[in-house]
Amino acid sequence: MSLLVVGSLAYDSIETPFGKADKIVGGAATYISLSASFFHSPIYLVSVIGEDFSPEMWQEFKNRNIDTEGVEIRKGEKSFFWAGKYGLDLNTRETLKTELNVLADFDPKVPEGKRNPDYVLLGNLDPKVQRRVIEQLQEKPKLIAMDTMNFWIENFRDEVEKTISLVDVLIINDEEARLLAEDYSLARAASKILQMGPKYVVIKKGEHGALFFYDKNVFFAPALPLEEVFDPTGAGDSFAGGFIGYMAKTDDTSPENMKNAVIYGSVIASFCVEEFGPSRLLKLSEMEINERYKAFNALTSFEPYYIF
Amino acid sequence: MSLLVVGSLAYDSIETPFGKADKIVGGAATYISLSASFFHSPIYLVSVIGEDFSPEMWQEFKNRNIDTEGVEIRKGEKSFFWAGKYGLDLNTRETLKTELNVLADFDPKVPEGKRNPDYVLLGNLDPKVQRRVIEQLQEKPKLIAMDTMNFWIENFRDEVEKTISLVDVLIINDEEARLLAEDYSLARAASKILQMGPKYVVIKKGEHGALFFYDKNVFFAPALPLEEVFDPTGAGDSFAGGFIGYMAKTDDTSPENMKNAVIYGSVIASFCVEEFGPSRLLKLSEMEINERYKAFNALTSFEPYYIF
Repeated sequence: MSLLVVGSLAYDSIETPFGKADKIVGGAATYISLSASFFHSPIYLVSVIGEDFSPEMWQEFKNRNIDTEGVEIRKGEKSFFWAGKYGLDLNTRETLKTELNVLADFDPKVPEGKRNPDYVLLGNLDPKVQRRVIEQLQEKPKLIAMDTMNFWIENFRDEVEKTISLVDVLIINDEEARLLAEDYSLARAASKILQMGPKYVVIKKGEHGALFFYDKNVFFAPALPLEEVFDPTGAGDSFAGGFIGYMAKTDDTSPENMKNAVIYGSVIASFCVEEFGPSRLLKLSEMEINERYKAFNALTSFEPYYIF
Repeated sequence: MSLLVVGSLAYDSIETPFGKADKIVGGAATYISLSASFFHSPIYLVSVIGEDFSPEMWQEFKNRNIDTEGVEIRKGEKSFFWAGKYGLDLNTRETLKTELNVLADFDPKVPEGKRNPDYVLLGNLDPKVQRRVIEQLQEKPKLIAMDTMNFWIENFRDEVEKTISLVDVLIINDEEARLLAEDYSLARAASKILQMGPKYVVIKKGEHGALFFYDKNVFFAPALPLEEVFDPTGAGDSFAGGFIGYMAKTDDTSPENMKNAVIYGSVIASFCVEEFGPSRLLKLSEMEINERYKAFNALTSFEPYYIF
């Protein structure tokens, strides 16, 4: 199987109620590819960075068989930078600064020989840029999943809908789903989004778990009630990375198997939030993933008892 | 088995984004006993009303084998009245008016011959009044469950904690749990509450499901993503009623069985919100409960697959 990941590689400055982290490595593609790397390799990464990008993370990518041939490195330029601050309950965040830098005119190039991926994850980016990636593919992949965010839906709805119509799975959070479908009810929002093209919609609800909609069905993956949530940055991208990594690993696109992908996505996200930035992911072990997957199973397991 | 329910019988005026209902029957004990009546009978109801209480609902209680001997009827006085208005997302509500009336000096009297219940549900009331009920019991019941609310925790914390120390199950919502434990993390809040006395804590999260904590364990019951939520009034009480009704019916106080009680509580609550006040409960059938219980099972069912 081959897995292609597109998204930003960045520096983030993060402030949470528990502390500050200045200029640490971030970006959707960092979280997605690190998370997916637990399940599958190689990962073909398509992104853009400046000359300033972290050599340590670059080496980490190599160690994890994350193929960086598709990462454009712009001499004399700076990587995308984002600074944000989370509210007390960690559910709200304020963007303090966005410096697009190399991302401003990012034109993704999928390397020759890597244009036939079986699985594709389009991280949050300009929907036109996401489409530029799909256009370069030579054959229809088995599964294309994408993320997006409020900014694109609010300002470039047509472009977002055009890209959504080309993918199999849309992975977004509850607020984005409501905005996209213009409906407060997540059940109705999901139906509307399914009519836009995708066969599957995953709606992430943060600490409240994730919903997976397909046809007329819905599956619910809980979130583990964590005692310590330290930094939510990258949780959504880790979810997407775990999801697509599991799909590529198992190579079974049935909805039944996708439920497990949703659970594994939740598992990886639950680790991500335990420390600042991607640092928890960098020391995560397969045994820990296994243990937590078991805990997720136990969380909703019960012996049904029909009394009527 | 015998089941004792204590709580208010009232009139409510409700405004939601979808409409208004003026002076309809409400009160915790109405929702609790109607909900419990699907599972178990008789139900010994202890409450207080004025002369104005609905003869139709009174008849409904009789039809459902809800024993009203313990309901004090005050001549020339009026029943408790509450008026409230829900915000657009139905998660916030504003109290417009509270007229305590007969509830102001409610002194619950458990009738002779009904002071040995196996199961007890203390609906939201002054914690001193809840304790007055426990004091009248002749033997320790198999299970006492209670509800409370912000008002009591904020203004009479000592009294609330005293009552909590006497019960087996505390059933509250997330906001109340955080307030009671003075901790934002629900996992930590639950641990703290378990140290106050109860063996079990159920934390209701509305549309985000419910968590059930015991010892070091946690079980999660999802909420069905409903297309239409019409009026959340009574949802928490319906949950509690379904929970305790199922417990009395099955008479098995193991945590494993209690998980099913949490699911059945969620099932009944999911019906309650579909119409104004208790009207959906009044026409609910056993078959519908069965169907929805099945849907709740399906919602979180998947075939675990360990890849590590």
